[in-house]
Amino acid sequence: MRHRLLALSLSAGLLAASAHADEGMWLPAQLPQIADRLREAGFEGDPAALADLTRPPLNAVVKVGGGTGAFVSGEGLLLTNHHVAFGVIQYNSSPERDLIGEGFIAATRADELPANPDFRVRVTTGFDKVTDRILAGARGKAGRAYYDAIDAAEKALVAECEQAPATRCSVANMHYGTDFYLVRQLELRDVRLVYAPPEAIGNYGDEVDNFMWPRHSGDFTLLRAYVGPDGQPAPYSEDNVPYVPPAHLQVATDAVQAGDFAMLAGYPGRTYRHRMASEFASQVEWTLPERVELYAGLIETIEAAIGDDADAKVKYASTLAGLENGLKRAQGELDGLRRSNAVATRRADEQAMLDWLAGQPEAAAIRADIAAAQAVIDATDATRERDQLLGAIGRFPHLLGSAMRLQRLALERGKPDAQRESGYQQRDEALIEGGLKQVQRRYAERVEKALLVDLLTQYIALPQAQRVPEFDTVFGTTPGQVRARVDALYAGTTLDEEAARLRWFNAAPADVAAADDPLLRAAAALQPAILRLEAEDKTHAGELLRLRPAYMRALIGYRESRGEAVYPDANSTLRVSYGRVSTMDPRDGVRYLPLTTVAGIVEKHTGVAPFDAPQPLLDAIARGDFGSTADPELGTQTVNLLTNLDTTGGNSGSPVLDAHGRVIGLNFDSNWEAVSASWKFDPRYKRAIHVDMRYMRWLMAKVYPAPQLLAEMGLPAE
Amino acid sequence: MRHRLLALSLSAGLLAASAHADEGMWLPAQLPQIADRLREAGFEGDPAALADLTRPPLNAVVKVGGGTGAFVSGEGLLLTNHHVAFGVIQYNSSPERDLIGEGFIAATRADELPANPDFRVRVTTGFDKVTDRILAGARGKAGRAYYDAIDAAEKALVAECEQAPATRCSVANMHYGTDFYLVRQLELRDVRLVYAPPEAIGNYGDEVDNFMWPRHSGDFTLLRAYVGPDGQPAPYSEDNVPYVPPAHLQVATDAVQAGDFAMLAGYPGRTYRHRMASEFASQVEWTLPERVELYAGLIETIEAAIGDDADAKVKYASTLAGLENGLKRAQGELDGLRRSNAVATRRADEQAMLDWLAGQPEAAAIRADIAAAQAVIDATDATRERDQLLGAIGRFPHLLGSAMRLQRLALERGKPDAQRESGYQQRDEALIEGGLKQVQRRYAERVEKALLVDLLTQYIALPQAQRVPEFDTVFGTTPGQVRARVDALYAGTTLDEEAARLRWFNAAPADVAAADDPLLRAAAALQPAILRLEAEDKTHAGELLRLRPAYMRALIGYRESRGEAVYPDANSTLRVSYGRVSTMDPRDGVRYLPLTTVAGIVEKHTGVAPFDAPQPLLDAIARGDFGSTADPELGTQTVNLLTNLDTTGGNSGSPVLDAHGRVIGLNFDSNWEAVSASWKFDPRYKRAIHVDMRYMRWLMAKVYPAPQLLAEMGLPAE
Repeated sequence: MRHRLLALSLSAGLLAASAHADEGMWLPAQLPQIADRLREAGFEGDPAALADLTRPPLNAVVKVGGGTGAFVSGEGLLLTNHHVAFGVIQYNSSPERDLIGEGFIAATRADELPANPDFRVRVTTGFDKVTDRILAGARGKAGRAYYDAIDAAEKALVAECEQAPATRCSVANMHYGTDFYLVRQLELRDVRLVYAPPEAIGNYGDEVDNFMWPRHSGDFTLLRAYVGPDGQPAPYSEDNVPYVPPAHLQVATDAVQAGDFAMLAGYPGRTYRHRMASEFASQVEWTLPERVELYAGLIETIEAAIGDDADAKVKYASTLAGLENGLKRAQGELDGLRRSNAVATRRADEQAMLDWLAGQPEAAAIRADIAAAQAVIDATDATRERDQLLGAIGRFPHLLGSAMRLQRLALERGKPDAQRESGYQQRDEALIEGGLKQVQRRYAERVEKALLVDLLTQYIALPQAQRVPEFDTVFGTTPGQVRARVDALYAGTTLDEEAARLRWFNAAPADVAAADDPLLRAAAALQPAILRLEAEDKTHAGELLRLRPAYMRALIGYRESRGEAVYPDANSTLRVSYGRVSTMDPRDGVRYLPLTTVAGIVEKHTGVAPFDAPQPLLDAIARGDFGSTADPELGTQTVNLLTNLDTTGGNSGSPVLDAHGRVIGLNFDSNWEAVSASWKFDPRYKRAIHVDMRYMRWLMAKVYPAPQLLAEMGLPAE
Repeated sequence: MRHRLLALSLSAGLLAASAHADEGMWLPAQLPQIADRLREAGFEGDPAALADLTRPPLNAVVKVGGGTGAFVSGEGLLLTNHHVAFGVIQYNSSPERDLIGEGFIAATRADELPANPDFRVRVTTGFDKVTDRILAGARGKAGRAYYDAIDAAEKALVAECEQAPATRCSVANMHYGTDFYLVRQLELRDVRLVYAPPEAIGNYGDEVDNFMWPRHSGDFTLLRAYVGPDGQPAPYSEDNVPYVPPAHLQVATDAVQAGDFAMLAGYPGRTYRHRMASEFASQVEWTLPERVELYAGLIETIEAAIGDDADAKVKYASTLAGLENGLKRAQGELDGLRRSNAVATRRADEQAMLDWLAGQPEAAAIRADIAAAQAVIDATDATRERDQLLGAIGRFPHLLGSAMRLQRLALERGKPDAQRESGYQQRDEALIEGGLKQVQRRYAERVEKALLVDLLTQYIALPQAQRVPEFDTVFGTTPGQVRARVDALYAGTTLDEEAARLRWFNAAPADVAAADDPLLRAAAALQPAILRLEAEDKTHAGELLRLRPAYMRALIGYRESRGEAVYPDANSTLRVSYGRVSTMDPRDGVRYLPLTTVAGIVEKHTGVAPFDAPQPLLDAIARGDFGSTADPELGTQTVNLLTNLDTTGGNSGSPVLDAHGRVIGLNFDSNWEAVSASWKFDPRYKRAIHVDMRYMRWLMAKVYPAPQLLAEMGLPAE
């Protein structure tokens, strides 16, 4: 550790509070430190029992496909979201057997359907601090060398770890390079579909209700993990047997109401809450407004170029939807950060930290690192206009993008596989080939040229200091040149033919590099610039990995001085958040209630997707036969649940637990107002949306019955 | 009384309950009968004290302009809505002295500004049952004769009553002809503007927020009534003195919260809740859907005819806005009646009444009257398509309408004034002349012809039985004839010139009748049909006046048998409703809170009307200096108040009283979901929207101070 007196390990100190009582994506190891707050919030278990994510109950929470899930029986039964398991349902669905539309119930174990072969469930078996080993070779270095040393150490550690059978390993970076953890996971490869509601239940409301409350979705599915007869992970085989998990969770049978304690475990993807104040300012004052403007302009350009061309309209529908979604999210994040006054709050917080730091030993050295980190950020900010435009040029024009990927692949294929750039290794080639094929369905010459001319016209208007010689050479430096060069490139290329793209994909690297196709020639001419900019990025990244820990240590030290604990920003590792079942007041005079009911399904039902509730569901609601799953206070069947739990993308499928650790909900979304929570947790607006487990139980008891599964989960038959 | 054994006067019996605890627009005389329920709901005063609307406290509630108001000091200070007093503010406003935009505070009595001379305040001084006198000449008659007898008796009674000085009288018909009351009012003619907030407070949100909750409007104004030095009503004079009202209300100083008792007194205009089940069915199954379809079609026709014509667009903006508002209201009413299952509920209720009736004496005679009333309704239903279209033809085409009004005026001018049709008497002529002038700003030939052709094309498609010979003769019976005749009428008329219309307005009746202008000739040809249809209407109306009392007596008797009281449908007489400060759940998972706060003003503020809160208001909110008017629980300043009080159009300006009879709110709107309440009170959705008096007090104490008025009302200075 470079700053010894301030060195704080994540397990040091007994820290009682976070900035907001309800904020926090805690590492399990931190939970004993905040045990008092947990108990005060209503938790009735032993916080110490939650400290180790490789032991019960947290090891019942696993990675499932791209999301989270939890074992809910001793025989490998797994609860996750319908949308997390959607690929599995789709893989088993056909026009003759429409599991998406009709749902699925495996009558017996033998009827359980194998998932797509690449679907995985991962059970964490190790989570060990490896900071010293990762940083050993980096210390004393700087910039690109610091980056490469960490990269090499991580790769070596992962390779060593993965020598164990059926094991996937990765290194998690906590607090921006402050600490590193080796995550070891058992990989289960035989996963089967057990129970799925019809899509009109599992995805009721679809895009219309996405990010919305009140919500009425039964977004859950049950899978089962299997292993070989020897108990070891194995690919699908008839002889496989259900996996016996090291732990499983019990689904609750108690009622839930506003104010009840709730706790959630899962794998949140990425947050930026401990970024520097200047980065908050950049995000709010530049990145988000510029993204809104760029996307709005691109949408306008694409729509104008499409005009009345019905074919082009279909081809660009997905691109436009993506841009519109990106614009909407950027605007939502911007609105949220402004509403929460995020920049001023973070700035005042940082200033208070710096004031506190002044009285600490080694303050000068830490301040020097912070200043150096700020200088790196300022340097990257100096070319942010260019970087945004070059990023868009690399991303949106499909044909130019194909040419650039083909040239890069040709370059990387000349290296040993382990040294190839990530994304261009042998295991990535199938994906690249698929992308080259897909261009056909997404490309119209007139639209792509208009898009590219739009971006390049913005690019050539940048000050000279931000310009890149290779781009100027290829595309020219005046609007007239840009239009003429783009016309010539697209008039001469044959890359608009799928066969041509695949021919180049299969060609020898040297032939690609020497190709006379004008787009491939242009891509070859641009490639040195791209490699140079990437190298600069890695140098900046290395410097920030080296310098940010000083900032984080100051922040943690400052928080500790106020009795507050600091959770690391989310990084796809297992986290626990706690809070309560909670109302939300979206605006003055309006309150969202924390429990929705089946009445809302009927209110929203139009008969047309996404509000086409299946008749058996409508009939069951009309009968009002809710049995033990009815809410005693509301006198009806609840559907979804709102809490103030701290979540972000990646928390899909996270189990929501009550004070006794029993599953009361299944996380599947958050509210629109919380889109800015990746930067700033605002307790007024941050909420998470869950399936009420009583809705799942009712569906399985009364609507699409599966008594054998209720029995397996230890739940009443009705 | 015709059915002696069932004869129920409104004061008979001690009836404890209405169908819904919160439903009811009670006659003051009924309040002692429901005293137990009032007390149970929380009223702490003596219900008997509310029985006479000519004695305190109810005689503090008066008619103000087109709405309701209440005296709030012993010196004639009157509280009503900003929108009720808007004409007074506008009358005193000029570009140099913008009272609408800036608001107004009279520093002293001498600064109070006289209202427009036709503005009136009416204090009810008598409310006496005159049923026997009204029906004496009608008994034994039927149809048109029954109608005319009642009409003549009413006119005679009113003329006799109005012989007293400064007295306005009218006859109110209760329970559809069952009982009649003579209403005697003292008319105050010198009314002055005392205090008005800026329009951006008094009408914050305007049309955008109209019918909406949550709401943030300061829709109040203070006026003062003056009388001559002798204490008698007089027109404006400098020598006049403040009127000493027989009673005044005290504005409350206590906090208000959800669940608190609330009571409202005012003049609701019209409801249809005691209409027959078949009329409910007609409204839901025919009238409202047909109106939606007709208006939607007319909007489409007008917009198509306008095309790109900017001038026509301006001229038809108001017509289109009216049609769109009418369509929206019809659709809202339809949605509400369907949501409340109004037809089935009313039908079951009516059937239960008929079942009960079977066991009563004289059931056969009553059933015969009900069957006869139903036959009249069926007869009018038989021509409802035609009546709807002819109504629209009389209403929407401005030039044809002018021609028809000119011909009718010529006809009526040939009679003694007292015998002229209402709307065509001497006192109405200025209004007719104004309308003829206004045509210029609302008429474009192409649009009017398209509209008329659209309506006539629908008309000629009706079955022969519904057609009217005069219309067929004038407009033809095929689409080609209709187009050609309309073209010819508009090509030949000079009524598109204002001078021509006014010339005919001033011409001798015989000259108008013999005019050679094609539109006037057409109107002359149509007039016999219109008079004939009007006479048929009066015959139907007379029959229903004669027959409906049997239905009402059966209904009242049935309700009484269940211990329920029946309030008469609203008819612009003083009514009292009671209930409580109340949340509302507009849909599953969403709750409207009953108190809004100044935070909502800031949330809605955009700087652009109608959300352009004045800077002094924003500054005062930012200061947070709310003094004694802050809500103790919310810790901030409240703005508006939601109750479940039973209101309809005409209740604007009604004071809302607490359990001790003190004013806690000022009614100014209801919620969108309650638009169907004129037919069916649905306790889940019916709410009324009020200004919280604490907001008024805060504005007058801290934002636009008027300490002298607070002192006059006996309220704290801050």
